[in-house]
Amino acid sequence: MKTEKISEFTINRLSIYLRCLNLLAASGVTTTSSQALAEQFQLNSAQIRKDLTYFGEFGVRGVGYNVTELRAHLNEILGLDRQHRIGIVGAGNLGMALANYRGFEHECFQVAALFDKEASRLGITSRSGVVVHHIDELDEVVARQRIVIGVVAVPAENAQEVVDRLTESGISAILNFAPVRPNTRPGVQLKTMDLAISFESLSYFLSDSGQDGPTPP
Amino acid sequence: MKTEKISEFTINRLSIYLRCLNLLAASGVTTTSSQALAEQFQLNSAQIRKDLTYFGEFGVRGVGYNVTELRAHLNEILGLDRQHRIGIVGAGNLGMALANYRGFEHECFQVAALFDKEASRLGITSRSGVVVHHIDELDEVVARQRIVIGVVAVPAENAQEVVDRLTESGISAILNFAPVRPNTRPGVQLKTMDLAISFESLSYFLSDSGQDGPTPP
Repeated sequence: MKTEKISEFTINRLSIYLRCLNLLAASGVTTTSSQALAEQFQLNSAQIRKDLTYFGEFGVRGVGYNVTELRAHLNEILGLDRQHRIGIVGAGNLGMALANYRGFEHECFQVAALFDKEASRLGITSRSGVVVHHIDELDEVVARQRIVIGVVAVPAENAQEVVDRLTESGISAILNFAPVRPNTRPGVQLKTMDLAISFESLSYFLSDSGQDGPTPP
Repeated sequence: MKTEKISEFTINRLSIYLRCLNLLAASGVTTTSSQALAEQFQLNSAQIRKDLTYFGEFGVRGVGYNVTELRAHLNEILGLDRQHRIGIVGAGNLGMALANYRGFEHECFQVAALFDKEASRLGITSRSGVVVHHIDELDEVVARQRIVIGVVAVPAENAQEVVDRLTESGISAILNFAPVRPNTRPGVQLKTMDLAISFESLSYFLSDSGQDGPTPP
């Protein structure tokens, strides 16, 4: 499967390029280049060209990229030209925050259901109108609601069990917010969101190295 | 300032290398190499060497890296050898979820205070024991609690105001969870957590390109 050949870093960079192109399009720019993108958004132009090469020939040498076309290509590559329905397991603070998150552009990602095992949370509706089901209804709701992405928003000690149940329900793409690395079956893509990593780049900035360290070549 | 020269991608990769080294150390491995790291954790060995070169000479050619030493260096570079106190603005679901997040290793990051403007939330304590203060107490609590990292966990429409208030309170490192890009003053490091990007790499996996696309060189 290609995901094992094209790294997750590459895919994450495509997402970033797409956001930059969206910003350019919004300000009326119709053509750009890897150099211009790199300068405006502090990226690496050689990296941009290399990342895009994996997926075909997009630019015209000496002319650059057509912003509209490249956006369409990236949307297609990333699978953002269709809707993906999300089921969140764990209806605590994190699950509810994710259900209400308004950063999913173009409604490409739609939270369809929440799941929990605590009786006090069942039947509750998120601000955005998503209902909390009992975890025992997972298989049925996943099938009925055509859910393809599962989110793990439970404490670390329950994460493996939830990953197993999501996998058994037929879900092959899982985003895990618990600070552990659950095991998965072959063919299941699990991505763990490590919130500490975001803080570490700020910590770097606050450190001595971030203030006056060596200059790269 | 060096953060403008060394890219955030590099810093994020250092965080990942550190996690890999921590796993190796936990399983008793004492020496590794860029090739071994790349193979075991699906990284790029040339990238590892290049990223580390920015910060000095760590490995011995033909021998590799001493795991303990490289971990210590990375901890120091990332500023993880000291404690950073965090203030979270917004005590809704997201703010509370972050206050209770148990993924901050070694207690290097400690959530010291929550802030909100809604009367119903003031004085509430998170599961982890962090108290919600009124946002008008920000300056005083930031100074008293020696808070150095601010987190924006409010709706998009309030994010800019919160970034401004955090900056005025003397905080120069901000992690923003609102799906907008607030403006900052020079010298302030703001990182926006785009939760949609995590879903996009899963969406790629579910797409045609993720299933059977071209093979990279």
